[in-house]
Amino acid sequence: MTTTLQSSAGRDKQARDAELLGQLRAAIGAAHVLTDPNDLADRLIEDRGLYKGNALAILRPADTAQVAECVRLCFAAGVPIVPQGGNTGLVGGGVPEGGVILITQRLNKIREVDAVNATMTVEAGCILASIQAAAEEVGALFPLSLASEGSCQIGGNLSTNAGGTAVLRYGNTRDLVLGVEVVLPDGRILNDLNGLRKNNTGYDLRNLFIGAEGTLGIITAAVIKLFPQPVSRATTMVACDGPDVALLLFERMRSQNADVLSTFEYIDRSALQMAIDHGPGCSDPMMQAYPAYCLIELTSTGAQDALDARMEAALEAAFEAGEVIDAVIGASEAQKDALWALRENLSDAQKPEGASIKHDVSVPVSRVADFVNAGKAACIDYMPGLRPCPFGHFGDGNLHFNLSRPKDMADADFLAEYPAFNRIVHDIVHEMGGSFSAEHGIGKVKRAELRHYKDPVALQLMTQIKQAIDPAGLMNPGKVL
Amino acid sequence: MTTTLQSSAGRDKQARDAELLGQLRAAIGAAHVLTDPNDLADRLIEDRGLYKGNALAILRPADTAQVAECVRLCFAAGVPIVPQGGNTGLVGGGVPEGGVILITQRLNKIREVDAVNATMTVEAGCILASIQAAAEEVGALFPLSLASEGSCQIGGNLSTNAGGTAVLRYGNTRDLVLGVEVVLPDGRILNDLNGLRKNNTGYDLRNLFIGAEGTLGIITAAVIKLFPQPVSRATTMVACDGPDVALLLFERMRSQNADVLSTFEYIDRSALQMAIDHGPGCSDPMMQAYPAYCLIELTSTGAQDALDARMEAALEAAFEAGEVIDAVIGASEAQKDALWALRENLSDAQKPEGASIKHDVSVPVSRVADFVNAGKAACIDYMPGLRPCPFGHFGDGNLHFNLSRPKDMADADFLAEYPAFNRIVHDIVHEMGGSFSAEHGIGKVKRAELRHYKDPVALQLMTQIKQAIDPAGLMNPGKVL
Repeated sequence: MTTTLQSSAGRDKQARDAELLGQLRAAIGAAHVLTDPNDLADRLIEDRGLYKGNALAILRPADTAQVAECVRLCFAAGVPIVPQGGNTGLVGGGVPEGGVILITQRLNKIREVDAVNATMTVEAGCILASIQAAAEEVGALFPLSLASEGSCQIGGNLSTNAGGTAVLRYGNTRDLVLGVEVVLPDGRILNDLNGLRKNNTGYDLRNLFIGAEGTLGIITAAVIKLFPQPVSRATTMVACDGPDVALLLFERMRSQNADVLSTFEYIDRSALQMAIDHGPGCSDPMMQAYPAYCLIELTSTGAQDALDARMEAALEAAFEAGEVIDAVIGASEAQKDALWALRENLSDAQKPEGASIKHDVSVPVSRVADFVNAGKAACIDYMPGLRPCPFGHFGDGNLHFNLSRPKDMADADFLAEYPAFNRIVHDIVHEMGGSFSAEHGIGKVKRAELRHYKDPVALQLMTQIKQAIDPAGLMNPGKVL
Repeated sequence: MTTTLQSSAGRDKQARDAELLGQLRAAIGAAHVLTDPNDLADRLIEDRGLYKGNALAILRPADTAQVAECVRLCFAAGVPIVPQGGNTGLVGGGVPEGGVILITQRLNKIREVDAVNATMTVEAGCILASIQAAAEEVGALFPLSLASEGSCQIGGNLSTNAGGTAVLRYGNTRDLVLGVEVVLPDGRILNDLNGLRKNNTGYDLRNLFIGAEGTLGIITAAVIKLFPQPVSRATTMVACDGPDVALLLFERMRSQNADVLSTFEYIDRSALQMAIDHGPGCSDPMMQAYPAYCLIELTSTGAQDALDARMEAALEAAFEAGEVIDAVIGASEAQKDALWALRENLSDAQKPEGASIKHDVSVPVSRVADFVNAGKAACIDYMPGLRPCPFGHFGDGNLHFNLSRPKDMADADFLAEYPAFNRIVHDIVHEMGGSFSAEHGIGKVKRAELRHYKDPVALQLMTQIKQAIDPAGLMNPGKVL
């Protein structure tokens, strides 16, 4: 009896799914409702292969109206939707658990460039690099910049409030957005595509959707801010005794060069060594090894010589104060790029050294040196021989606190310790008023950490908001909350 | 019968109110539950006397726990709460319609100054000027600055997302906040007092309460951002032919001096003339009258001479391009202050000229000159003899589009035309993608405009959120929505 009932229910579901697919094909064209397993395969997994999801179909709507129609149909059928952009996320936020995958690939138009207002209206499917290029064409800068910029889409950047290398100067993605267009979970279209610097007309809906990881609706377009393109940059790598003096140096750079400071990255020697050993074309920038390094860049719309003078004045004072023990100044654009290449190779260069356990954490800037010291000590104490390789956005208080396994340990044995290291590192971070997810988000990977560390009232409030906006729970279920 | 029933209901309500007041006195002390009409008087009105409200009592809780206890008791009794800070708002957002007034005056502690993290944790009742002073003590700048800074409180600034004169460089209040502590409508305390530059752990709750005008809860404390104190400033007032060339000049200043541009204010001759005629100690800064003026200021943590050189280079190019026809460079701090005094007297100087009708509007920066031209033409067309005095934050697209009455018209006759001018001006603004409330908020005054101009889906969503967080509708009822 039970078996028959289940089969009957299964047949019902199959029939309902088939009906929905038929409606979706009628709405956006049969060519844009993909159900072939070969078409689905790449969209069921994320980059690191941590999860494999399942889905009924991929939907490729052409524009906002089609997105709204797809959502309306799925809402009526009670079928969940996972929105996907470039599928470059690192926390499983785009992995489907049944339902349909809605991809924003065809919403790839730059609707408007308003150079005088310093804004651009972009659709969710625009590749980040193509937005950067379009800004450059009008002599402007869109400062959001991250490793996956050649394939990630702005819709994903918005939904995850992406960080990257320009946060110190320009802020997170959230800070680069003026207006949004969103398809709500029932198919209504919120039109808040304003390009205004000042607009106090009710609740700030924009920031509710930015960083919500697709759980409250689908961002289909946004008005983003552009900035004047800098015409000069001064790039220096300095060596110092460790994170404590690096923090003093950061304070000096910030107070003397606040207007023009764009980059202050910290690199532990252990991390730099791996880049030197494994990074293509990388070599030690100095004659001898030092405990730690900082990559510092000033950029300006003013003259190069004035900027160089500001860098030199600050460095001179830092040498005198003992904060800096050696320095390489990028004298040409090629030399500046070479210093950046060391920074950019840090992550990949850890791979040949075996498995690593990664943490994307932030603390108040005043605690960032304490965190490096305490984190290294606690982790080595737990596992002698461990090789911590901390580096990252020191000036934002955001470190990639990566741990390479002891040289003689098996990868699998090491990775089995992931939860233990999470607890050690995240407890220290939490104790310092920090965050266990600085820029990558929650997705599927960090839901347990969210429940463990987040203020319970904040969790309740998030649930109340989710319930109010998506009462059926159809938008990217199983993520964040 | 009916009379008896009503009286009985009235007696019931009186008894319930008395019971609540007793509970409140027990919770925060009898001295801090004020019911004397003399104590209430000042708190029932707003500055311009547009409304007179009524309230049962004023509550003066000492700290967040007491605020929470007051809110819990009122929630249980079903009695509305109007939070008030300095009561300096201009849109009636703090006027009570029954219930209690909760004032944040005693929550006036600066809980923490973290100079290295460049943050300060402040309670809602801190006066803005005292926060600015505390920042200065550690060599830092809290850039929020507005006319009422000597009496307004940061809680009110947060609840209204205040703007002011430093938005071009540092953003609105929203952009100056990292974390908040909020007492929710049922008395729960949301603790999100983080001081992190990067923190992607769920929905952005902070921005939901900032700018909500007290309708979703009471912000009791916040972590605000500090900035390095500039050590140099270059201040210039230039004369030009009108808003169209002023916009070209703004573009030039922004592209050449993006790192250091802090102020770009526009002043119509009509507005400047009133400041010259009525402002204490004000005189014409130039030898002859011109159609329009811009007040431009660069500030920097770098050297004064380098900053002066950047201002001069930009001005020279602007003269050559015909954008500027005359200029006064502030050669001393006193001269710089004198140029600012002209700007600061614009609003008050309109009073001796009779009634004025004011609009706090914004448009995309690319439309700001078009708006000045179209707005003046349409208003004069409607009422010949009218004297438009536009001035304001040109670089943010935010103008105070003030209209002084025709010289020979009675104030009351002129003010009767307020709705007509609202429709004329706000229609032009709306057509240009602008906002009818750039920095002052909605309160009671602009609720009808909100319903008229706001995207209907945005209004629905605001109502859904209000319903989810304050289902009993007890937080500042009759405001915003």
